[in-house]
Amino acid sequence: MARIVQKFGGTSVADVERIRNVARQVKAEVDRGNEVAVVVSAMAGTTNQLVDWCNQFGALHDRREYDVVVATGEQVTIGLLAMALQELGQKARSWTGWQLPVRTDNAFAKARVKAIDTAGIEEGFKRGEVAVVPGFQGLAPDNRITTLGRGGSDTSAVALAAALKADRCDIYTDVDGVYTTDPRIVAKARKLDKITYEEMLEMASLGAKVLQTRSVELAMNHRVRVQVRSSFTDVPGTLVVDEDEIVEQAIVSGIAYARDEAKVTLAQVPDKPGVAAAIFGPLADAQVNVDMIVQNVSRDGKTTDMTFTVPAVDLERAVAVLEKARASLGFSGLQADKNVAKISVIGVGMRSHAGVAQSMFRTLAEKGINIEVITTSEIKISVLIAAEYTELAVRALHTAYGLDAA
Amino acid sequence: MARIVQKFGGTSVADVERIRNVARQVKAEVDRGNEVAVVVSAMAGTTNQLVDWCNQFGALHDRREYDVVVATGEQVTIGLLAMALQELGQKARSWTGWQLPVRTDNAFAKARVKAIDTAGIEEGFKRGEVAVVPGFQGLAPDNRITTLGRGGSDTSAVALAAALKADRCDIYTDVDGVYTTDPRIVAKARKLDKITYEEMLEMASLGAKVLQTRSVELAMNHRVRVQVRSSFTDVPGTLVVDEDEIVEQAIVSGIAYARDEAKVTLAQVPDKPGVAAAIFGPLADAQVNVDMIVQNVSRDGKTTDMTFTVPAVDLERAVAVLEKARASLGFSGLQADKNVAKISVIGVGMRSHAGVAQSMFRTLAEKGINIEVITTSEIKISVLIAAEYTELAVRALHTAYGLDAA
Repeated sequence: MARIVQKFGGTSVADVERIRNVARQVKAEVDRGNEVAVVVSAMAGTTNQLVDWCNQFGALHDRREYDVVVATGEQVTIGLLAMALQELGQKARSWTGWQLPVRTDNAFAKARVKAIDTAGIEEGFKRGEVAVVPGFQGLAPDNRITTLGRGGSDTSAVALAAALKADRCDIYTDVDGVYTTDPRIVAKARKLDKITYEEMLEMASLGAKVLQTRSVELAMNHRVRVQVRSSFTDVPGTLVVDEDEIVEQAIVSGIAYARDEAKVTLAQVPDKPGVAAAIFGPLADAQVNVDMIVQNVSRDGKTTDMTFTVPAVDLERAVAVLEKARASLGFSGLQADKNVAKISVIGVGMRSHAGVAQSMFRTLAEKGINIEVITTSEIKISVLIAAEYTELAVRALHTAYGLDAA
Repeated sequence: MARIVQKFGGTSVADVERIRNVARQVKAEVDRGNEVAVVVSAMAGTTNQLVDWCNQFGALHDRREYDVVVATGEQVTIGLLAMALQELGQKARSWTGWQLPVRTDNAFAKARVKAIDTAGIEEGFKRGEVAVVPGFQGLAPDNRITTLGRGGSDTSAVALAAALKADRCDIYTDVDGVYTTDPRIVAKARKLDKITYEEMLEMASLGAKVLQTRSVELAMNHRVRVQVRSSFTDVPGTLVVDEDEIVEQAIVSGIAYARDEAKVTLAQVPDKPGVAAAIFGPLADAQVNVDMIVQNVSRDGKTTDMTFTVPAVDLERAVAVLEKARASLGFSGLQADKNVAKISVIGVGMRSHAGVAQSMFRTLAEKGINIEVITTSEIKISVLIAAEYTELAVRALHTAYGLDAA
């Protein structure tokens, strides 16, 4: 007997018929002799509608009330799925985030899970009951409702799998696994059988959109074996596992891209100690996450240009914060550009192989693509380019690193 | 300074613009120096959609899961209204049923409110905060979500007004008060300035549909002053109050009708002690509420005919229960008829005036309308007639009792 957490996203539970289909997949897992907890998202489209209503009260609406509103989407799904399971003769009950509870911090609209009390679920397992749990939602220390931010259902599933010490966390989605790159852009993209947590983390945070970044961090920290698989087919998906579970490791595992960042350049910032802190402190206070940062060498010994990227959705807020601090920061000009894309080459094999960066730069140069910003980590190299070159760059790199399917 | 509970129904909060309109009405009450708690329904149409999804899992779906699903409608509204109030510069916060909590019994899908903890709301009043509370939902003893049944938001509002010892409970609705009868049927119907709890109770339970029956019972028991008024105009509505607040009491206050009952006749039931209990016991067990009951005088000393009404939606269930018990009950035939209407004349003044019933019977006879069943109480007389005569009967009685507007 294994203990499995299954997670189904919004398209898998988009209507009553699909919820019945999910119920069949859950029951099949129970019939194999396993204990099952299911985490579900809101029915496709629901969360967008709820968020849209909230946004009609301006960008500065009360995030605590936002969470009250958007948490309802998942609550609908858990009730319906519990009914669908019962319809199949499978014992089941729903648990809201506050009923378990799923304890989070008080960062409303982007809360982090602190602890999940699984006592109720484990009691249910003894009675042969499937636990149906909403993704995305939790309970703040002051007993108000929190949500984990968009895509938080993956995180909920992995956190629940960790809390339940589950043998596996199956993330059912509308793709059948993790690919070497986005198959919509590169027809020759290949599905990976296994990928390491570290690589998946880079893939997720760089825009591969298969798994939410925090869910992968959490899986890595708690060594939760995660399987990304399709809710529409029965083929095995991609296992996200420890590096030592992967026998033959490729140098580069995948190419990721992200078009949801914006570039900000501050011209002629006084080049003195503490200026970076002076710039990024206020942005952090305004909850704007800064990603790539490049500080140019000072031309005149007095001033420098500072370039960095922020999420495109936060660009206006970032610009407002910076303009407000213009006098104290002392920069002469501010340029903002949303027409950029971040292209990344990822692979744990990079650590032991030289020349990976060089291949990337040469490949892009051959296509006439200008690199605006570069950042690197142990297992990835990212470049910022003009957005219009995204597909061209991804295809060229996929071929250059030998990732194309035969 | 007064303490007011306001309640807005589904059409008043049907979209973001209307929610903003509600926020303005709430703020106006605060600006008059009052402490305000607002109870809201789900946005129009939402609950129907949620109920429809649940019903796709058959009539016997788990009512606990049903409550999980349908309680979400009101949760959406409280968050949005809190935002709308904040947008106007009015401090506000939402409280879900489980946060207060609103304690109910465990009759899922038709729970009754046991107690409301108002400590959080009263703390908020001290901070100048409006409390935004969902109608319809509560918390069972086992901490699962309950709902109060359709229309339960009125009950929530009155229960909250009682718990807060509010000076008034204003029920905003799509009509501007309580009328002497349905204005859609009788153009000369008049709006009442005041009506007693007892009369309102008869009006509500007899199908006037302005206020939910249980909310009126609750208001009467706790002496909550209720005002029924329009959310679209500013004119005063109808106050539902104690009899002694009404100086000049009419003999008849209103004419109500209900077309949602069905008549059942059991022919030749053995006329012996205990037969009524034998018939109505199984119906009660099947949760079918029996309303009007007439037992004919026995013609042969051995058998009698028994006629009664049940809610039309429960007719099939009632017939099934009775047919199953046919052998033990010993009746010879069962007739069921949905084409009936119950017409009622209501007024506390009836208690001290003779001849009210006689006027009713004569008026109907003059129009050639046959009376099938009669029941009376201290303050009302109800008759069952063929449904096709409903409008004719209501209009004739409205004129006969001098209720027509000048």
